[in-house]
Amino acid sequence: MKTSREELLEKALKPARDAMILHPFYRGKIQTALKCPVRSVDDFAIWYTPGVAEPCKAIHADPSLADLYTNRGNTIAVVSDGTRVLGLGDIGPAAALPVMEGKALLFKYLGGVDAVPICLDASDPDRFIDCVRMLEPTFGGINLEDIAQPKCFRILDTLREEMDIPVWHDDQQGTAAVNLAGLFNALEIVGKKIGSARITLYGSGAANIATARLLAAAGAEPGNLILIDSRGALHPGRRDLEGSNPEKWRMAQTTNAGQITGGPEEAFRGADVVFSYTKPGPDVIRPEWISSMAKDAILFACANPIPEIWPWDAKDAGARIVATGRSDFPNQVNNSLGFPAIFRGTLDVRAKTITDGMCIAAAMELAECARETGLSEERLIPTMDESWVYPRVAAAVGVKAIEEGVARESMSREYLIETATRRIETAREMTAVLVERGIIPLPE
Amino acid sequence: MKTSREELLEKALKPARDAMILHPFYRGKIQTALKCPVRSVDDFAIWYTPGVAEPCKAIHADPSLADLYTNRGNTIAVVSDGTRVLGLGDIGPAAALPVMEGKALLFKYLGGVDAVPICLDASDPDRFIDCVRMLEPTFGGINLEDIAQPKCFRILDTLREEMDIPVWHDDQQGTAAVNLAGLFNALEIVGKKIGSARITLYGSGAANIATARLLAAAGAEPGNLILIDSRGALHPGRRDLEGSNPEKWRMAQTTNAGQITGGPEEAFRGADVVFSYTKPGPDVIRPEWISSMAKDAILFACANPIPEIWPWDAKDAGARIVATGRSDFPNQVNNSLGFPAIFRGTLDVRAKTITDGMCIAAAMELAECARETGLSEERLIPTMDESWVYPRVAAAVGVKAIEEGVARESMSREYLIETATRRIETAREMTAVLVERGIIPLPE
Repeated sequence: MKTSREELLEKALKPARDAMILHPFYRGKIQTALKCPVRSVDDFAIWYTPGVAEPCKAIHADPSLADLYTNRGNTIAVVSDGTRVLGLGDIGPAAALPVMEGKALLFKYLGGVDAVPICLDASDPDRFIDCVRMLEPTFGGINLEDIAQPKCFRILDTLREEMDIPVWHDDQQGTAAVNLAGLFNALEIVGKKIGSARITLYGSGAANIATARLLAAAGAEPGNLILIDSRGALHPGRRDLEGSNPEKWRMAQTTNAGQITGGPEEAFRGADVVFSYTKPGPDVIRPEWISSMAKDAILFACANPIPEIWPWDAKDAGARIVATGRSDFPNQVNNSLGFPAIFRGTLDVRAKTITDGMCIAAAMELAECARETGLSEERLIPTMDESWVYPRVAAAVGVKAIEEGVARESMSREYLIETATRRIETAREMTAVLVERGIIPLPE
Repeated sequence: MKTSREELLEKALKPARDAMILHPFYRGKIQTALKCPVRSVDDFAIWYTPGVAEPCKAIHADPSLADLYTNRGNTIAVVSDGTRVLGLGDIGPAAALPVMEGKALLFKYLGGVDAVPICLDASDPDRFIDCVRMLEPTFGGINLEDIAQPKCFRILDTLREEMDIPVWHDDQQGTAAVNLAGLFNALEIVGKKIGSARITLYGSGAANIATARLLAAAGAEPGNLILIDSRGALHPGRRDLEGSNPEKWRMAQTTNAGQITGGPEEAFRGADVVFSYTKPGPDVIRPEWISSMAKDAILFACANPIPEIWPWDAKDAGARIVATGRSDFPNQVNNSLGFPAIFRGTLDVRAKTITDGMCIAAAMELAECARETGLSEERLIPTMDESWVYPRVAAAVGVKAIEEGVARESMSREYLIETATRRIETAREMTAVLVERGIIPLPE
C-alpha cells in the first residue's frame, strides 16, 4: 500500500497527460443531440413553424407547461465565473469551460440530466446574479461551480431566494452532502454519535463552511464545531471577519463554544473528526496533530491531488479512519456520488429548491447503500462505478422533497427509482451506441 | 393547384395539431449528448479532475485554445427575449422556448452546429445586451431570434460591434440572405438587373429592413428601394420616425429617391419586385396593386401561415413569379436554407463575424445550386430536403470570410465542402442511430 511519493505523483500526472492528448482529439466533451425524430423535412413543420406556435401559446397561457412541452424540466445550467477553478484559482471564464463541460458530461452520464455549461464573463457578483436570474425561463435548475468565496455564499443565498428553480453550489452543498455520508458511516464504525462528536474543520473555504452548515442541520452541536482559517480558529472574538466575510463571521458566532483560539495544533486536540480542505500535501497536517485527536479519530484529508497527509502516515499517527479525494485510495470523498443523483431526484419531482433535508436524505441513502454492500473502515461510501446507487439516492431526495412540500409532483419511492434508473441507463446506452457506431470515435 | 381557402387553412392547421400531440410526448426536442467516450469511470479523471486542469491551464495561457480543447468552436447560443415570437408577438421568454429548441434542432440536423436555446427574462435591451455579452466565453457564435423591433436593430449592431464572435439575427440577416437568393434567380429568369430594378418592400419590420440593407450591399440602387410601414412609404419627410425608430429614419433618408408618398397603391406602381412581410392574408395585397407593377413582376408574399395574396390570384393579376413562406407552394422562402449552412461555414473557418459579403456569397451559392439542378419560375431556390446544398453554401461562406480577412483559419473550398458534408452527415446519422436503437422513440 505504501507507494513512494514519486510513484503517486507520477500516477497523479497520468490523467493530465491523457487530458492533453484527448481534449484536442475530441474538441469538446458534450454536444447537442436531437430528442425527437426527423421522419422527413415535413416534421420541421411540427418542431418549428408553423406547428410550434401551439405549444408556445399553451405555455404563454400557463407557464408551468414549459416542463411538458420542452426539455426545460430536465435541463440545468452549470454556471461559473471562473474565479476559483479547481485548485487553479481565478483563471477566468474561458479557461473554466473544460471543467464545466466535464461537469455536464457527469450530469448526463451519471444522472441522465441534460446540463449546459455556461461560463460567464462576470466577475462582479451583482452582474453574475443578474445574468443567472435572467436564465430562469430556460433551465429547470442551476448548478453553480468554481466561484470564489466569500462571494459564492451571497450568490448562492440570493439566487436560492430569488429564483423559483433549484439553485445549487456544488462546491458547497455537493461536497457537504458527500462528506456527511462518509461521516455517518465513519461514526457508525467507531460507535460515536453525531450529536456529541467534536468536529474540527481545517480550512474555511466553501466546502468546509457548507459542511459545517449541513452538519448542524444534520444534528451536530454547533458549539462542537471548530472552523480554522489561515489566521486560526474561528471564535466570537475574530473581529477581522466582521464585514469582510459575513459567512465566516456568522460561523465564528455560532461555533466553537469552547472558545478555542490558536491554530490546527489547538483545534485538532481532542477532536473526534477532522475535515481538512486546505492545500495539497503531504506535509500540511502534522502527525502529532493527529495523535492529539480523540480515540478512534476520523480524518477527511481532501486536498487534491495530494492529501494534506498520506493516509498511512495519518494511520501511523493514530487515525482510525482516513478518507481522501483520490480515487486510488480507499474512501474517496467524491462529489460525483452526489450531484447527479441529487439533481435527478430533484428534477423528477419538479422540486422548487434543494433543501438541507434533501441533502441529508441523500447522505443517509449513500451511507445506507454502502452498509448494504459491506461497510468497512476502507469502504465508507460507494464508488462511482456502483451505478445502482444513483437511482437510490435520487429517489431518497425526491421522497424527501415530497415530504417537505417543495415538490411540484408526488410519486412513490418505487416509481422514482424506476424513473431514475431508466433515465440514467438511457444516457449510458446513448453514449455506448454512439461509440459503437463510430459517431463518437475511440482514440487511436 | 387552386385549393380552397378552407382546405389550405386545414392543411396549415395539421402541424399545429401534431405539435400538441408530439411536444408533450417528447418533452423537448434537443438534449445533451456526450462527444467523447467513457471507457470506464477512470476516464472521469481525464474529462474531469484532476486531468481537466491541464487544458484549463493551457486556455488560461492562450484563450484561443478554447476552440481546440472544448466544443465552444462548434457551439452557438440561440438567444431570445420572447418579445416577438413568430406571429404571436410578445409572449415572453418561457413561451419562446419551444421555438428556440426547434431552431437548435434545425441548426444541428441541417448544419451540424451544436446550438443551445437561451430564453432570457430581459425585455430591457440593455440588460439583454449585457447578458449576451457575458456569454461570450461559452459560445462560438450567437443567433438572436424573435426580438421586437426597433430594439432588435440596436441589439444586433451593439453586439456585433462589442463581441469577438459572430452575432447574427436570423429574422434580419437570415431572411435577407434567402430573399436575395430568390431575387437573384427571379431577376435571371425575367432578364432584369439588380442595379436598375425598382424594389418595393411592403412592411418595415426586421425582415424587410434587413433585406433593404442587404439589397443595397448586393448592388441595388438605394434610391430605387421603397419601404412601406403602417403609415405609408418611408421618405425623407417622415419626421415621425426621427428619434422613435432610428433604423427606419436612416432608411427614410437613403431610399425612395423618387420621394413617393402614399401607401402600397402608390409604391407598388411600376415596381419590378415587391417583398411583402406584413400580416397573414389572403386579402392584404390587392390584385390591382399587382397589376400596376412593371412587366414581369416579381412578388415575395411572405406572411405566414397565409400569404398576403394567394399566388394564383397574384398571377392572374399579372405577377410572373411569386414566392411565399409556405412549404406547400412553389418557391418557399425559407430561412432554414440559410442559417444552418451560413453558421457551418462561419464556424469552420473560425470567422470573427458574419459580414454582408458572406450573406451575399450564401445567397449567390443558393441561387447557383438551384440553377445547376433546373431553374424555373416555380423553382427559384432549392428546397430543404436537398441536403447537398448545405455544404456548398457553407463553403461559399467560408471562402468569402477568408477572402475578406475575417477568418481565423484558412482552407480550400474543397476542404470546406468535405468538412461541412461530414459534420452534417454525422448529425443526421446520429439522429438516425438514436431512433433505430429506440433511444429516440417513434410516436405511436
